Amino acid sequence: MEDAASTGPEPHEAMSTIYDADGRLRTDWYEALRAEIETGDAEALRARMEPLHESETGDVIEALPADDRVRLVMLLGDAFDYSALTEVDDSVRIDLMEELPNAEIARGVADLDSDDAVYILEDIDEEDRDEILAQMPAFDRISLKRSLDFPEDSAGRRMQTDFIAIPPFWTVGQTIDYLRTNDDLPDDFYQIYVVNPGFNLLGTIPLDRILRVQRATRIEDIMNTQVRQIDATLDQEEAARIFERYDQVEVAVVDESKRLVGVLTIDDIVDVINEEASEDIHRLGGVGDEDISRTVPGVVRSRATWLLVNLGTATLASLVIGLFDGTIEQMVALAVLMPIVASMGGVAGTQTMTVTVRAISQRELDKNNAWRLIRRELLVGLTNGVIFAVLLGLITGFRFANPALGLVIGMAMVVNMIVAGGCGILIPMLLNKLKVDPAVASSTFVMTFTDVIGFFAFLTLAGWWFGLF
Amino acid sequence: MEDAASTGPEPHEAMSTIYDADGRLRTDWYEALRAEIETGDAEALRARMEPLHESETGDVIEALPADDRVRLVMLLGDAFDYSALTEVDDSVRIDLMEELPNAEIARGVADLDSDDAVYILEDIDEEDRDEILAQMPAFDRISLKRSLDFPEDSAGRRMQTDFIAIPPFWTVGQTIDYLRTNDDLPDDFYQIYVVNPGFNLLGTIPLDRILRVQRATRIEDIMNTQVRQIDATLDQEEAARIFERYDQVEVAVVDESKRLVGVLTIDDIVDVINEEASEDIHRLGGVGDEDISRTVPGVVRSRATWLLVNLGTATLASLVIGLFDGTIEQMVALAVLMPIVASMGGVAGTQTMTVTVRAISQRELDKNNAWRLIRRELLVGLTNGVIFAVLLGLITGFRFANPALGLVIGMAMVVNMIVAGGCGILIPMLLNKLKVDPAVASSTFVMTFTDVIGFFAFLTLAGWWFGLF
Repeated sequence: MEDAASTGPEPHEAMSTIYDADGRLRTDWYEALRAEIETGDAEALRARMEPLHESETGDVIEALPADDRVRLVMLLGDAFDYSALTEVDDSVRIDLMEELPNAEIARGVADLDSDDAVYILEDIDEEDRDEILAQMPAFDRISLKRSLDFPEDSAGRRMQTDFIAIPPFWTVGQTIDYLRTNDDLPDDFYQIYVVNPGFNLLGTIPLDRILRVQRATRIEDIMNTQVRQIDATLDQEEAARIFERYDQVEVAVVDESKRLVGVLTIDDIVDVINEEASEDIHRLGGVGDEDISRTVPGVVRSRATWLLVNLGTATLASLVIGLFDGTIEQMVALAVLMPIVASMGGVAGTQTMTVTVRAISQRELDKNNAWRLIRRELLVGLTNGVIFAVLLGLITGFRFANPALGLVIGMAMVVNMIVAGGCGILIPMLLNKLKVDPAVASSTFVMTFTDVIGFFAFLTLAGWWFGLF
Repeated sequence: MEDAASTGPEPHEAMSTIYDADGRLRTDWYEALRAEIETGDAEALRARMEPLHESETGDVIEALPADDRVRLVMLLGDAFDYSALTEVDDSVRIDLMEELPNAEIARGVADLDSDDAVYILEDIDEEDRDEILAQMPAFDRISLKRSLDFPEDSAGRRMQTDFIAIPPFWTVGQTIDYLRTNDDLPDDFYQIYVVNPGFNLLGTIPLDRILRVQRATRIEDIMNTQVRQIDATLDQEEAARIFERYDQVEVAVVDESKRLVGVLTIDDIVDVINEEASEDIHRLGGVGDEDISRTVPGVVRSRATWLLVNLGTATLASLVIGLFDGTIEQMVALAVLMPIVASMGGVAGTQTMTVTVRAISQRELDKNNAWRLIRRELLVGLTNGVIFAVLLGLITGFRFANPALGLVIGMAMVVNMIVAGGCGILIPMLLNKLKVDPAVASSTFVMTFTDVIGFFAFLTLAGWWFGLF
């Protein structure tokens, strides 16, 4: 990391020294920190933590054991920047909030941008939250309450309520003078919003455009009138898609009467994109909304559901095998070989399903290309089916000195690979149509189909061929 | 989508009309487009495509069959904005580039920002690329060649080479005047770079800071001296991590002598984050760098590798079963039940592996929490092992009216679930240590271990218990 984000030539060499070359926390730094927490040396801790960026503070908090997290925050007092809590895992933040006194939280949250404050407050239970809000300045309280009234994971929850709005008849000069004399501007901003008296959005002006033109230029002559605005109730994932699609850095958020109520900025959206990717990956892997900080009971719960479902489907597959116990008894080689067919089908089905689920979540799969893709997956299944049928057929024929057995397993392989391709694309598409997240449920269904069909095709074909029924 | 990115109250209602409520291309719009391509109606096509954003044009190109893509670009001529090609799948772009005349590409690329031009040129084979570059203006050619000399997927490839650099002794007034009188500014910019005569970076100034202060203020007094800069050779994924970590919108890129050579902007980084997430998801699902536009032979190739590996590991598992053919012959119920143990282990292993791989790619797993997580996964394996051992043991005991068989399968389940938890975390960590991407290879190893141990544990325990050896 040091090389990665190297600093300017001269005085800033001290930056990023808390990470080692792999971008992980330096062990010596971390041990020194823990020693200072141990001895309760508040002054040393303030000096140590002061130069850190909020995300670095977040990394430090995550690395610490739960007790030390609370002690660190309490020892730092005023010097602790609560925005660091937006950078840690949900479970770490929630646990820490439970341990900290509400008055302490109210003080810390009052210093934050509205979007960060909401992010921290939304996971606190209602009773504590009301107590915290009651201890905050009235103006902050009202704006936070309004944001918290929007649905979870909506644009209204993620938006920053500080923004700069001006009327269209101002000149560039007036605008610059207003910015120069106003002390109460947002921390960072990238564009200015042009509104009518009802606070409906008329246009936007990126800052660079203000700097390019003469002072006498009227705002309405240079503003961007093709404005994109997001309803506050829109899901954050949909909002992220608008940022990606139109390469935006900041987008206006409006309420149900189309009044401008806030702005979404790209840094929040980057977090949303990462969260959604983690969610997709976890769901495909059969785990819920699980983060690395959870403790054993939480993890056991989050995984047991899927294991239970799998117990059901595996039992189903086992019942199918059970139908053929007579066949297997006469030819044990079938029991030895049958997992191969099922496992190849499982892999092929997972491949198709993975590509399909990702394409659906990226909105790349639509009516216009669905048929082409279904045809493609069936053809891929057939082709790989034939290739691996020949391979496995030859291996099996030689291994058991039984060419007919090779032929049978080859045929079963072709059948199962085509079924795998078909299920791999049709099941996620169907679930999506039924408004079920395909990332959650596709895997179970695809594996069940490929297992059952794999066992059934192989054992049936063998039974017929060798006259074992 | 219409509701999602709804437009201002008045004249812009025509926006985003090419999508239906689900965010997919409207069928009537698409059919009308295809008819115009069919009849070669260039004028109608220009009118139809003109209002679209580059990403919308990209969606349209992806939806069209390959032949129609080329015809559309040729019919649009000058009116086709090549930046749309940065928004389509790689395979679509590469195919299209092969069909288009080099002179046409040279003309289209010359209009683009340097980062977009490089993005399009980097996948074209060297001979064609040299021919295209030779037909471009000298200044563009030199800057593009320099970017193309940086390694693939590096910050140097993704950077924009247009930026604003000023000396530290300027005042804010001088800077604004410079921006007002200079016609050759980048399209969009969010900060200004302060450099010494050797073009080493001294500081940065976000545009909002320039607008907040008086004209007489000296630049060096308000610039940000804690600058973060990225080496041009740094991998784009590492660069993305710096943007995420420090909530940057634009970061300076420097060459090996620390000279400022370009800037990376957040819109490119958002694409990188999405690409990397897709790559992780695809790799975990056992498919290579595959996109939805690939044709059958490409897809067959991209998936065959992993299927071949699986054929090997499944054969290994089958050899393990083969060791017990005598045991199975005496008790066919074992063949009926054995896939359940292996499949439960497979799911548990995949769960742990998924969480671990994502944590590694998000840099959340380090030396400080590794041991805690390994202990956690083993404990989760033990707990879920016991829970499902009891369940499966009871089901099996009743199903075969054989309590001893239930006990044996239960014990095998506990063993396999602990092994699954251990492999699920240790294998990705080991691969990462060996500098192999854990997303690519973990799955094979984890599945092999859980299959082999699952079959082996169950059949061995059964053999001992029932004295079948």
